[in-house]
Amino acid sequence: MVGRMCVAVLIVLLLVATAGADPNGAETLKENPELPVDFVWALICGFLVMFMQAGFAMLEAGFSRAKNVANVMMKNLMDFAVGSLAFFAVGFALMMGADWQGIAGTTGWFLAGESYDVSTIELWFFMLVFAATAATIVSGSIAERPKFSVYLVYSAVVSAVIYPIYGHWLWGGGWLSSSEFMVKLGGGYGALDFAGSGVVHALGGYIALAAVMLLGPRLGKYDSDGNPRAIPGHNLAFAVIGTFILWFGWFGFNAGSTLSAHELRVSIIASNTNLAAAAGAVTAMAITWLRNGKPDVGMTCNGAVAGLVAITAPCAWVQPWSSVVIGTIAGFIATYGYWWLEKRGLDDVVGAIPVHGFSGTWGLIALGIFADGSYGLYATESPLVTGLLYGNWGFFIVQLISAIVNFAWAFGTGFALFWILKKVIGIRVSPEEEMLGLDIAEHAAVAYPNFVCTETELPLAMKQGGGR
Amino acid sequence: MVGRMCVAVLIVLLLVATAGADPNGAETLKENPELPVDFVWALICGFLVMFMQAGFAMLEAGFSRAKNVANVMMKNLMDFAVGSLAFFAVGFALMMGADWQGIAGTTGWFLAGESYDVSTIELWFFMLVFAATAATIVSGSIAERPKFSVYLVYSAVVSAVIYPIYGHWLWGGGWLSSSEFMVKLGGGYGALDFAGSGVVHALGGYIALAAVMLLGPRLGKYDSDGNPRAIPGHNLAFAVIGTFILWFGWFGFNAGSTLSAHELRVSIIASNTNLAAAAGAVTAMAITWLRNGKPDVGMTCNGAVAGLVAITAPCAWVQPWSSVVIGTIAGFIATYGYWWLEKRGLDDVVGAIPVHGFSGTWGLIALGIFADGSYGLYATESPLVTGLLYGNWGFFIVQLISAIVNFAWAFGTGFALFWILKKVIGIRVSPEEEMLGLDIAEHAAVAYPNFVCTETELPLAMKQGGGR
Amino acid sequence: MVGRMCVAVLIVLLLVATAGADPNGAETLKENPELPVDFVWALICGFLVMFMQAGFAMLEAGFSRAKNVANVMMKNLMDFAVGSLAFFAVGFALMMGADWQGIAGTTGWFLAGESYDVSTIELWFFMLVFAATAATIVSGSIAERPKFSVYLVYSAVVSAVIYPIYGHWLWGGGWLSSSEFMVKLGGGYGALDFAGSGVVHALGGYIALAAVMLLGPRLGKYDSDGNPRAIPGHNLAFAVIGTFILWFGWFGFNAGSTLSAHELRVSIIASNTNLAAAAGAVTAMAITWLRNGKPDVGMTCNGAVAGLVAITAPCAWVQPWSSVVIGTIAGFIATYGYWWLEKRGLDDVVGAIPVHGFSGTWGLIALGIFADGSYGLYATESPLVTGLLYGNWGFFIVQLISAIVNFAWAFGTGFALFWILKKVIGIRVSPEEEMLGLDIAEHAAVAYPNFVCTETELPLAMKQGGGR
Repeated sequence: MVGRMCVAVLIVLLLVATAGADPNGAETLKENPELPVDFVWALICGFLVMFMQAGFAMLEAGFSRAKNVANVMMKNLMDFAVGSLAFFAVGFALMMGADWQGIAGTTGWFLAGESYDVSTIELWFFMLVFAATAATIVSGSIAERPKFSVYLVYSAVVSAVIYPIYGHWLWGGGWLSSSEFMVKLGGGYGALDFAGSGVVHALGGYIALAAVMLLGPRLGKYDSDGNPRAIPGHNLAFAVIGTFILWFGWFGFNAGSTLSAHELRVSIIASNTNLAAAAGAVTAMAITWLRNGKPDVGMTCNGAVAGLVAITAPCAWVQPWSSVVIGTIAGFIATYGYWWLEKRGLDDVVGAIPVHGFSGTWGLIALGIFADGSYGLYATESPLVTGLLYGNWGFFIVQLISAIVNFAWAFGTGFALFWILKKVIGIRVSPEEEMLGLDIAEHAAVAYPNFVCTETELPLAMKQGGGR
Repeated sequence: MVGRMCVAVLIVLLLVATAGADPNGAETLKENPELPVDFVWALICGFLVMFMQAGFAMLEAGFSRAKNVANVMMKNLMDFAVGSLAFFAVGFALMMGADWQGIAGTTGWFLAGESYDVSTIELWFFMLVFAATAATIVSGSIAERPKFSVYLVYSAVVSAVIYPIYGHWLWGGGWLSSSEFMVKLGGGYGALDFAGSGVVHALGGYIALAAVMLLGPRLGKYDSDGNPRAIPGHNLAFAVIGTFILWFGWFGFNAGSTLSAHELRVSIIASNTNLAAAAGAVTAMAITWLRNGKPDVGMTCNGAVAGLVAITAPCAWVQPWSSVVIGTIAGFIATYGYWWLEKRGLDDVVGAIPVHGFSGTWGLIALGIFADGSYGLYATESPLVTGLLYGNWGFFIVQLISAIVNFAWAFGTGFALFWILKKVIGIRVSPEEEMLGLDIAEHAAVAYPNFVCTETELPLAMKQGGGR
Repeated sequence: MVGRMCVAVLIVLLLVATAGADPNGAETLKENPELPVDFVWALICGFLVMFMQAGFAMLEAGFSRAKNVANVMMKNLMDFAVGSLAFFAVGFALMMGADWQGIAGTTGWFLAGESYDVSTIELWFFMLVFAATAATIVSGSIAERPKFSVYLVYSAVVSAVIYPIYGHWLWGGGWLSSSEFMVKLGGGYGALDFAGSGVVHALGGYIALAAVMLLGPRLGKYDSDGNPRAIPGHNLAFAVIGTFILWFGWFGFNAGSTLSAHELRVSIIASNTNLAAAAGAVTAMAITWLRNGKPDVGMTCNGAVAGLVAITAPCAWVQPWSSVVIGTIAGFIATYGYWWLEKRGLDDVVGAIPVHGFSGTWGLIALGIFADGSYGLYATESPLVTGLLYGNWGFFIVQLISAIVNFAWAFGTGFALFWILKKVIGIRVSPEEEMLGLDIAEHAAVAYPNFVCTETELPLAMKQGGGR
């Protein structure tokens, strides 16, 4: 009976757009005639961020073997589809709804009632594509061995609960950004993260860390002595094109986060984003060249993405030269971070833990160092944000706290989720299925039926540097 | 003599921009200082729609065999190139020129004279990329067996005549949208189709139906008992990346159709578009999972595209929850529609008939059901559009009529065109050429000369579910 | 000691944003409230141009053999990364800084001091992605045999010096566009190049000519009698998708060059761009169909790109019909230009010399012929630009001079650079490395380790027309 009541209430709610909301747009435009250009900016940048799903899919497919490519593609397509529905039903309300105790939002379920409004739904769209990015990061680390059903459950939970709640703490008026303690300590503002080094990337990276620990490495990744062996991805062209698509979409990711074209700072945000990516790529290329004798293509891609991840938090508040510094350090993190994990038995197929986790944390901290006081809280007015290099110790501490909480929440909830799934339904396919490949095992498909494929021997006996 | 006269008149017309037109832009800006943001919105959305050509090409190539990929790519490149020139010369004038009897337009040939104007040509660009989409839909259904020359003729005719005339009836002030009878029946407005479920997608889908009937199935598609056999596409990664590109471009397709950034409804249009695609993908995945035991990658892609097609007509006039319903039903249409056709000997390689034809018709009808009265005729003012669920039976009937006319015009002209071509020059390559592959037969090319290809045996003897 | 002083000055300069600059954006907005839509237009078009890097990478990879694909991708990724840092440090200042003698700019090093400003950095971002395009053109011509280290040095020098200095002469207030002599001869304006047929494309094309001459042809490209042999690219699907991405990005390349959405001429620029590309593709397809009996896919792609290159200089100043003429002639140039070079022992793997060099020169000249007087100098006001067909002989001569200077500067500096590199470190890998493939030789990588690859014999003994 109660079930039917709920459905009835929901239908009435859905059918009727309530008074306060403006689904038509005329009222909203009358109140703010300047809005059209802000809608154009936020929506087109949101479209660019959505397109990053294709970039993540190509990067992961490029680093995976041919026998798992259809599965990789299906994971990246369905974490966006499932995530969209989960964020529509529950996630957005928890993240951006009316605040409860600084913990979570409480309004906007199913975008019904008050939320059936042109401005609210513009915000929904922009926040959705960020949620999807956080979700898809994990896919790359755990590639080639998880059950597809487990991945779907994970996608729903991360988009409905894990991401939105942490997102509320930073962007929804929650305690990390707005509690008295944090604001006071920061010197006028609490924890900040302009476009999501922590909220999106480190969150995804540390959930990936938990999942990789519980899943275990791929068959054949380590020899009998525990030494790592290279399992080359099937398509380096895909990996680089995926990196280009991410770099292209990331301009929307960072500069779009003003949600307003009236913040002309967007030009500096876009340029800082590019400089950090360039520095990360050049640094990773140089490190692998010096260490292995040849510039490694896969690691250079990861250097570029790590630069993009690291600049995401500070992009609006730092100068171009410091973006180069932030990207350079991210290049070190992407390479040495990967080798450090690999030596400890953690088989992260695409390197998402160092690239998104560690570099995301570095982004939060870099903001606390390099913010130069030329820009405010998503606005040109004061308070203007300064970091350690410009005399603001308090904000540096705030950012350290934010980074720790970010790790604790992401790793904690990620570990709990995958641990429960492991206990209840098992998270890994059988060894036979893993050897056969997830395309056949999980989808009765072959990604490249017309190409004669091989996996056992590399066509040319060669030592693959860089653990890629 | 007359020929030379025509050329002379044309040259004079082309050389001289007539008085009324504003090719410079200064006058147009003076009359409406708000236009720049509308031009930015319409043009960038138009660029996104153009990029969907790459999405259609990758989806079709992914579902075709390696020996036909260069031909698939060439068809998708040249239907846009040939279509651009045909729409420049004749198509735009027939579609958007000064109306004659509600049937066709009569001005704007070669964008000369009055049409050499910043606003007219902005409209031309936006309408061109829609025409190209309608044309390229057919390519996927008839893949792997048509003559390339026939495909070029088809591309010119559909972009010059078939699409523009039907487009005039809906978007050019023609009888379906503006005749007294239809407006009265609809309760203040005639047939509507916000971004082209019918004008673009069902039109393409039903021309494809006619072509597939006249072409016949591929060699080997049916066994001696007439049972369908799976012919797996050569590259599922291409198919999914193509789907991502379509999903990304479709935001421009639907939200751009306001042609104005001052319609803040664009945020709801973009979000409805995303929700319908997500629902279509999840539904198709679930159906194939339940029916075949494994979630089918190809069908899941088609479910997403069917959701996008179906929401294209109603996207501006419905609520988010109904977008989920519309997309869910499209997921059923994409899957069961494909199997229904396949059982009846219709070999639609990519499934464009159910995905664009049947789902396009469903989109027109869904508009007549779910329009909730919160938005008007491409404007915030009245009349506000309502459907069956909100009490407007008349408009529901209008949409049914529109759907029937849409099918009759598309299937009728499509059948006539391919029938004539079949009689005059033959529309299919020889069996030997089909077996050799169209890359070599039609282009003296091999798409992947460095990969050892196979077609007879699937590398791993396996039963391919889902009739893909 | 002096070294440390310089570093100290640089640090102070970087740390402190000087008085005149507006890194915040509030002042700039107050002075010009209309700017947001211009920033949106310039930045999003700049993002589209950046994405063309992926298009160039896929086109080059498609025309290269599988054993060199990782190297092709790495070149296209790193010329953008290295180019970004070089243009940040030196290039932008030389190109757009305060003019010295019409030769070069002198302010804006490292975007420090006065240049840490929202408008200056918006210009930086737009100019950067153009510099990157010029740099990456050379990569395609010299594919499959250069040392990767040489390519990095070339990338830095072209982005830091060669491109910026020539760019200053056209777009930075230098002598070609602004010297009294040229302005007087042109009838009110010096040399023009709306979006870079010469500044970007012909510059890249003629540096490529010099590099190809000094590198020599690939092993096996010519038989013992000096007759050219086809070396088919490994992936025609990549080549066509790359062409689609270029075509899509080129709308940003040309229409974005108004740097202002208030120039409503942008709609005509976008449409002219599309018509020229379509005409180039159709022409090249027809030429190869008539000459070889089959429409050649690779040449058709080059016809489209040649059309885009040729319309880039005149796009804002010509009518739609003349865009079709300009694109048609470019189609002839792309095909016959390629065969002409090939017969003379010049092995241009992707055909960049005819497509970007010769067609870029044709674009400069076409501007001097077809400019119809309906638009001014990046503005609607007078002087309005007219060409030969509309009575302005002087401007036609100016454009001829510009084309000659463009060739002399590009070929001269390109030849000097590669000649020095040849002498100092050698520009070509060893024959053994070339046969093994640059992926293994330069990057210890295999692009497709899971695909069984072959190179000696084409899978199907066939004659490859079109010298691709």
